[in-house]
Amino acid sequence: MKTYAIGIDLGATTIKAGIVNPNGILLEQIVLDSKALKGPAAVIKQILFAIEDLLGRHKSDRCLGIGIGAPGIVSAEEGIVSFPPNFADWTEVDLKKSIAKVFSYPISIENDANVAALAEARYGLGIQYKDFIFVIWGTGVGGGIIMNRKLYRGSHGGAGEIGHISINYEGPQCNCGNKGCIESFVGQRYLSQRAAEYLQSLNLDKSTSKILELVDGDLRKIDPAIIASAAEEEDPTACEILRHAAELLGYALTSVVNILDIRVIIIGGGLSGSPKFVFAAIEESIRSRTLKTHKQSIRVLRSNMGNNAGMIGAANLILSSSYPS
Amino acid sequence: MKTYAIGIDLGATTIKAGIVNPNGILLEQIVLDSKALKGPAAVIKQILFAIEDLLGRHKSDRCLGIGIGAPGIVSAEEGIVSFPPNFADWTEVDLKKSIAKVFSYPISIENDANVAALAEARYGLGIQYKDFIFVIWGTGVGGGIIMNRKLYRGSHGGAGEIGHISINYEGPQCNCGNKGCIESFVGQRYLSQRAAEYLQSLNLDKSTSKILELVDGDLRKIDPAIIASAAEEEDPTACEILRHAAELLGYALTSVVNILDIRVIIIGGGLSGSPKFVFAAIEESIRSRTLKTHKQSIRVLRSNMGNNAGMIGAANLILSSSYPS
Repeated sequence: MKTYAIGIDLGATTIKAGIVNPNGILLEQIVLDSKALKGPAAVIKQILFAIEDLLGRHKSDRCLGIGIGAPGIVSAEEGIVSFPPNFADWTEVDLKKSIAKVFSYPISIENDANVAALAEARYGLGIQYKDFIFVIWGTGVGGGIIMNRKLYRGSHGGAGEIGHISINYEGPQCNCGNKGCIESFVGQRYLSQRAAEYLQSLNLDKSTSKILELVDGDLRKIDPAIIASAAEEEDPTACEILRHAAELLGYALTSVVNILDIRVIIIGGGLSGSPKFVFAAIEESIRSRTLKTHKQSIRVLRSNMGNNAGMIGAANLILSSSYPS
Repeated sequence: MKTYAIGIDLGATTIKAGIVNPNGILLEQIVLDSKALKGPAAVIKQILFAIEDLLGRHKSDRCLGIGIGAPGIVSAEEGIVSFPPNFADWTEVDLKKSIAKVFSYPISIENDANVAALAEARYGLGIQYKDFIFVIWGTGVGGGIIMNRKLYRGSHGGAGEIGHISINYEGPQCNCGNKGCIESFVGQRYLSQRAAEYLQSLNLDKSTSKILELVDGDLRKIDPAIIASAAEEEDPTACEILRHAAELLGYALTSVVNILDIRVIIIGGGLSGSPKFVFAAIEESIRSRTLKTHKQSIRVLRSNMGNNAGMIGAANLILSSSYPS
């Protein structure tokens, strides 16, 4: 048995933990309820349970360490996780210390979007690009910036908050306190809500809308995966909703491109399962708005890392320091 | 006589060229009409004249090289200047080659905002900060990003286009092709125009508005320097115009701060002569909109480099490679 690392993808709904070998292959995994609404102690208990379980499946002395991707602002050096959205009673928690009390392996914690960006850079489409902007489009809109094959963290470790670029300073209130953030237009909850309003305004029903057919007429059940499925079947309303969201996301990314002059964008997250035309629409939107000199070289790509990117990227926090890349 | 470098600040109105010693002190200077509306050949002729003139004043064998800060997109490696705004018939010009034909010194060309950011990092307030965002607020809105005391250029040398962050995707058309760019709200021309409209809407005259008094009632003569002067004398309308511009600039900078997690912003350019409250208003605007974790450490500072920053920064392109910093 070779060495391995444990990679943990901490989400507001589930904790996904896996054993990842030095080639970035996921060998085993466990998925648990994250108990995010029960407070930090409950969440940490679940994480410890997952680690214990995985160590029981493989020789624990071959474990090189534990890598964790966590939402919110993560101070990678100290291992403190602050204000993860949708986690109850969680202000600042020293997650590294809590785990180190129980397990004496090297522990590395990083923001989840950064972890996914690193996975993309090392095992995904990002291999081909020295610089790229990684966008996680799903529940929210997150991101990570890869410069010269390295993660750019900013002065305080909080860089890459692409979801909180405002596209309209008088736009809808975002959870973060700002107005008109792109997340407040195309994040899961907002997108679903707008889709519901749009369908209502068109007076469609189950026989005329694929989306309404899929949710059996219940507007509250609409989510981006449903919209994407309906769009795959060429439902015109679903296509229009996604095309419009893509256009708006493109406007936000135009500002990122103009600031950073990085012209390759890789889109991951739940919405990366959208039909191909969505990525073409994001690319076209950026091209229509960015600086003349940048237009032709803009590339928007769909990540092919899938759902395991979080675990693999988290394990990579350990593996990349043990194995030179 | 010690060694020196020639620093050239190429603007749409004037060419400022100077002799700068290795301590960043400007020893001599010449200011010429840039003849930007007469095409590239006329502009190059003026630059060559300025260099010739300066070399005639000091021993030409002590000249270490020629540094140039130019508007538009500059490919620093090749020395090509593309699409500088307000220069007639100028698409892509190999400025380095044109100068090298006549003068056999090392030549280094960089975007003007980047040059000013470098000057700020080496000789200005930036000395104290490893990372900062430099904003030139004047005719347009430009910028440069200093990361880890180095200029961040992006994948293709065009990074830092802070003026082309859109704060409203349905906002006014910007020259760059985008809509709602911050430059189209607070750049010189737009700001002057909006101020004129605002004064008209208030039905003010020379006796009730300091701005109108300063321009002798001629709305076309309003420019940001006039507005700033009136604000210094506490003219309420002038203060309101600048406060509003500061608020909007803060919204654009919020997106930059959220992407980069760089929390120090230094403001240079013509508008950096504005009264102090303007910088406090920019800081307050960012603080009111940026992520919770960032708010407290936001700092907006007024550059004290003044009008010679362009020449000194341009000379520094040569001096910093000759003298370890």
